[in-house]
Amino acid sequence: MTRDLFVATGSAAAEAELVSEYLVRSNLCGVDSHGVIRLMEYVDQIEKGTLHPNVQPKVVSDRGATARLDARFGYGQVSTKVAMELAVSKARQLGTGTVTVTNGNHAGRMAEYPLIAAREDMIGITMVKAYGSIVAPWGARQRLLSTSPLSFAIPAKRNPPVVGDFATSASAEGKVRVRYARGEKIPLGWVLDADGRPSENPGDLYSGGALLTFGQHKGYALNLLMEAAGGALSGAGVLTEFSGLNGVLVQAIDIASFSDVDEFKGRIDYLVERARASSPSEGVDEVLIPGDPEARESALRTRDGIPIEEKTWNAIVRVAAKYGVRTPSS
Amino acid sequence: MTRDLFVATGSAAAEAELVSEYLVRSNLCGVDSHGVIRLMEYVDQIEKGTLHPNVQPKVVSDRGATARLDARFGYGQVSTKVAMELAVSKARQLGTGTVTVTNGNHAGRMAEYPLIAAREDMIGITMVKAYGSIVAPWGARQRLLSTSPLSFAIPAKRNPPVVGDFATSASAEGKVRVRYARGEKIPLGWVLDADGRPSENPGDLYSGGALLTFGQHKGYALNLLMEAAGGALSGAGVLTEFSGLNGVLVQAIDIASFSDVDEFKGRIDYLVERARASSPSEGVDEVLIPGDPEARESALRTRDGIPIEEKTWNAIVRVAAKYGVRTPSS
Repeated sequence: MTRDLFVATGSAAAEAELVSEYLVRSNLCGVDSHGVIRLMEYVDQIEKGTLHPNVQPKVVSDRGATARLDARFGYGQVSTKVAMELAVSKARQLGTGTVTVTNGNHAGRMAEYPLIAAREDMIGITMVKAYGSIVAPWGARQRLLSTSPLSFAIPAKRNPPVVGDFATSASAEGKVRVRYARGEKIPLGWVLDADGRPSENPGDLYSGGALLTFGQHKGYALNLLMEAAGGALSGAGVLTEFSGLNGVLVQAIDIASFSDVDEFKGRIDYLVERARASSPSEGVDEVLIPGDPEARESALRTRDGIPIEEKTWNAIVRVAAKYGVRTPSS
Repeated sequence: MTRDLFVATGSAAAEAELVSEYLVRSNLCGVDSHGVIRLMEYVDQIEKGTLHPNVQPKVVSDRGATARLDARFGYGQVSTKVAMELAVSKARQLGTGTVTVTNGNHAGRMAEYPLIAAREDMIGITMVKAYGSIVAPWGARQRLLSTSPLSFAIPAKRNPPVVGDFATSASAEGKVRVRYARGEKIPLGWVLDADGRPSENPGDLYSGGALLTFGQHKGYALNLLMEAAGGALSGAGVLTEFSGLNGVLVQAIDIASFSDVDEFKGRIDYLVERARASSPSEGVDEVLIPGDPEARESALRTRDGIPIEEKTWNAIVRVAAKYGVRTPSS
């Protein structure tokens, strides 16, 4: 159905399949904020002319282990996947590949792209300058930066890849919104109120407040690296002066260029298994590996189905009806 | 005097000058934990035969944009500098350069190396798997991981480079030690006690406790990336099964390969100047840029001198006397 909607709004079959697959997999992993809830947004952008279906990224320059792509306002999923595939092919030749993407739209759950590299026995990394000004520099009271995420995947032999995938803000905006809707408090350290005071009230974010960076000054420094790599290096631009919705840098590092691949992956297994075997701290059930929560949720939801709240479902049904696409309930 | 001591313990003039310069500059920046306090440790390692003066790193393999170095237990300052210079020269040719170092000793303040790249209009990054098992995986109560640091430098035009340089633990061990010696409390979130409970008592770290990762699960994920890049990829090894004191990956990304250099650096200026101009949050004097605290301390100490506590000074005098090196007070 998701795929049919993309076809109905102008995508060829392969593009519809890809975008659909990434959105649904995001829901499967429990990352609902990057799942089918985005359908309405994408259709809206297509209608406004800011998102162009069936547009392939263009290689603007290609030099040694690097290249620059112009996504030409096509689907971020398409341009970021092409970018990582190009990085992988450069890495196979030269040991590493680094590719930037400008004029890109929302690319969904970023972990998809480092995982492309991990499947090829490479370490994959993405640095993204995200849209929106909602995060305060460390020590500041005003919004200026974005929730710009860092993502990476490291392949193992017996274990699934180690997957880091996180915003450089202390919390995703979506999590604050959910607590706000439910009338719940948020932990101190997520949000400042309009007067620059730490707040437990999620509503303060929506009345002049700001998100904090994660890990205080360290997350702040990483956020600036995302601005520099995803924003300035890609040519997309920094802060609010930037084009598209995502400025992206992807990188693939070929393990074989540095180490025996089996030895490397065995070492990651050892690392992962030792960490997993640690005694949990007070109040914790078991020690997890980055990527575990998504993998477990995915197993559960593959079995039990993806829960979608009524409001989102109704919106999907409405937009599907508009494009003459049948939904399971219609 | 520092330089004379290195010469007396076997270094040629250039090596003595380099190691000495980096240690003293670390003190100038206020990073005393990586300054001349290390002299005794280095001399001790030379005496034990685990640190070899005058040993240049050997290129083990060289492929495209990548290379592997074996530091052969020479000074970490020497091998890491050579690694970054090689990465820079590869980046000039191919857009990026990525070089690992195994069998390396302590390399001092890591920011020195990304700054080599930044001076060449490149983004410099270092990922280090550090010695020692003192950090608990997120959710665990036991020590397993190291304080493995990430460091990077981004050049600007009118402003000094943006410099991120931090351990992936919530605090450096040295800071906990200082509070312990002074009988002060530490903030919650730095340390777990032996029973896996959050603790404000720095002494708990020294009776079976562990450091926490910074930024909870996000710093944990980054710590594993340091193990993978600095440890497994370099061939040094992960966790406690590793050779040398530092496993290192350095990377240089040539800005010119992606963007007009002036435009890029102008954008970093804009980013930095907008962040600096933000209104501070409650209790904060001014909004800083990563790298500012070190730059300011350096200006102060260049004027006023470097304060060294008596205990450290006496230890330096003793080791200098042993090697017949004159100290200012002798």
